[in-house]
Amino acid sequence: MTARLVTGIGELVTHDERFAGPLGVLRDAALVVQDGVVVWVGPASAAPAADRARDLGGRAVLPGFVDSHTHLVFAGDRSDEFEARMAGAPYTGGGIERTVAATRAATDDELRARLAALVAEAHAQGTTTLEVKSGYGLDVPTEARLLRLAGEVTAETTFLGAHVVPTGVDRADYVALVVGPMLDACAPHARWADVFCEPSSPHAFDEDEARTVLTAAARAGLGLRVHGNQLGPGPGARLAVELGAASLDHGTHLTDADVAALADAAGHGGPVVTLLPGVELSTRSPFPDARRLLDAGVEVALATDCNPGTCFSTSMPLMVALGVAHLRMTTDQAVRAATLGGAHALRRDDVGHLRIGARADLCVLDAPTYRHLAYRPGVPIAHALPV
Amino acid sequence: MTARLVTGIGELVTHDERFAGPLGVLRDAALVVQDGVVVWVGPASAAPAADRARDLGGRAVLPGFVDSHTHLVFAGDRSDEFEARMAGAPYTGGGIERTVAATRAATDDELRARLAALVAEAHAQGTTTLEVKSGYGLDVPTEARLLRLAGEVTAETTFLGAHVVPTGVDRADYVALVVGPMLDACAPHARWADVFCEPSSPHAFDEDEARTVLTAAARAGLGLRVHGNQLGPGPGARLAVELGAASLDHGTHLTDADVAALADAAGHGGPVVTLLPGVELSTRSPFPDARRLLDAGVEVALATDCNPGTCFSTSMPLMVALGVAHLRMTTDQAVRAATLGGAHALRRDDVGHLRIGARADLCVLDAPTYRHLAYRPGVPIAHALPV
Ligand SMILES: [Zn+2]
Ligand SMILES: [Zn+2]
Repeated sequence: MTARLVTGIGELVTHDERFAGPLGVLRDAALVVQDGVVVWVGPASAAPAADRARDLGGRAVLPGFVDSHTHLVFAGDRSDEFEARMAGAPYTGGGIERTVAATRAATDDELRARLAALVAEAHAQGTTTLEVKSGYGLDVPTEARLLRLAGEVTAETTFLGAHVVPTGVDRADYVALVVGPMLDACAPHARWADVFCEPSSPHAFDEDEARTVLTAAARAGLGLRVHGNQLGPGPGARLAVELGAASLDHGTHLTDADVAALADAAGHGGPVVTLLPGVELSTRSPFPDARRLLDAGVEVALATDCNPGTCFSTSMPLMVALGVAHLRMTTDQAVRAATLGGAHALRRDDVGHLRIGARADLCVLDAPTYRHLAYRPGVPIAHALPV
Repeated sequence: MTARLVTGIGELVTHDERFAGPLGVLRDAALVVQDGVVVWVGPASAAPAADRARDLGGRAVLPGFVDSHTHLVFAGDRSDEFEARMAGAPYTGGGIERTVAATRAATDDELRARLAALVAEAHAQGTTTLEVKSGYGLDVPTEARLLRLAGEVTAETTFLGAHVVPTGVDRADYVALVVGPMLDACAPHARWADVFCEPSSPHAFDEDEARTVLTAAARAGLGLRVHGNQLGPGPGARLAVELGAASLDHGTHLTDADVAALADAAGHGGPVVTLLPGVELSTRSPFPDARRLLDAGVEVALATDCNPGTCFSTSMPLMVALGVAHLRMTTDQAVRAATLGGAHALRRDDVGHLRIGARADLCVLDAPTYRHLAYRPGVPIAHALPV
């Protein structure tokens, strides 16, 4: 029950309405942590006594980033595919099969070592909560294995058996496998289920297939997420609303009707839209328009989509900078989306903010203000702070 | 005369034609350093004995980045101006005056501390050669002071008295000051002179003014550089060719005639075009087209332009990633531009490559290949390696 004081915080982002501005910012602040939970927040001058104290010398602190969309359990490398795409080859999702082959061939310890390295890399850049999807197994034992390994590093595990239809497998047979034996084997290891709903891709799933997968997953007790509207307009956003998904991920190509449906649902627990601008950067694609969603009243999250094909980045600071540079967000909106927005996309109320009762997940910046996350792109100023 | 062996290099980028591909790449390599100079490069299996050895465990090594365009000596912060611009205010160069006021008011030690911190930050990301400009003094004593301080950290100092015309000062009077007493005071502390030639900006200099400044600087023995063609088409590129400048910097808006003139000059020591994509990112502006220049036979460098107004980033890895994502470069082209291209923009033959005789400036990656600089955007994988 040791109480630890963190003081000398030049600027503290809390998302607590008691404090200033849209992010609940307090200057010259301190906080006290007990048993891993924030138990006091206030001006440094009013801080209570504590068993241990740490002075941050005026640095800015914000809630640790919540990266609500990653694919961190895999083997192999696709930098050659990246090179080919940058030389003009289009992205269709077909490269996923290469990662599947490498992943199936890898041992648990190989997968664990890669996963641990990527989690450590994310942590070193200020990420303290990570969602991790399966989806590089595409058979019953490997999908279950990936979720078991993901569960060793996070509670936010997502069953993505419906990532792509494996080559040479009949689509209907594969959907039947996903909603049958694969779901049975995976549900015990997963909190969420997700589907790559993109009718324009021959590898991904159409509306009916996606609905089949998601309704079966919901019956098995899993929360829902949808990969959709990435490569073109499609049914993903409507399905996410209809089925009560926690998040629609990508959302680059949304019609006015999609935005209206998302906005209508926003008042009563409708999906967060999780934007993944590292994907557009790494595929030279048009960026989504965050401001259009925000102006309509839709909650937005920013996440990395870290995966070996379309965005091999663990950097939430980069996503904040891209949000501001390319998605028409203000820095306030981007920082909120990378913290509280991610938490809401995972329906978590204990992370993504630093109100009293929050998990003491702190991101400290080598900078006087959180605004430097956008003002200083690419500079490694953010780090998770062990408390 | 201690010989130091660096071995276990999974992939070594040398720019040595003896080795493979456009970057002169050697796998499973080693190199030997003596007195800070590369004296041997080859397969690890053939490495000679040395007094000390360091094994990099398969990591990739490339020449340290050459950041040939920065403005690192200044005081103050303009994150509020960045925010305003992201909310819609246009960039005209007017904010420079705010940095001038803060810089004039700062002590040498304050400026030194900030400069040292930024140099260390760049070094930590793999940059081993930095050019540093004056230009936030705009009076004789402060311009000379900034160059003296810059000279404490680099030999690549650039006199940029002609950054903007100070408010309230007559343009002709200011140009006379720059080419008279200011040049006299600054030339002993500078290797280069530069001018912000952008007729569309009321703060910058037109063609005649720029020619006056550059010819006077050349007579004083300084090499020439030109900030030009950033905000719109203009005379910068033509002037850089005409006057034998080492580099045209920015080059976002070039006519076909500009590109042809640059290409014609490229065979006989004409200007490198130094692209600064962090500026376009941080000002939400259209990116320059590197491939157009490269296809025409013009040498391209990538640099940060690190400055408090239009791009407060020291990250050369980000510039490589942006070069690939937004400037139509291949990874090979972007990595060359950030190393050898920068060296050529500074007319240096001892840095930017790892041929025998090069300065032992090494950038090591927490990655198996240099391709990860573009494939893994935002991830802090690059570090300068002390040898
Ligand atoms: Zn994804
Ligand atoms: Zn500049």
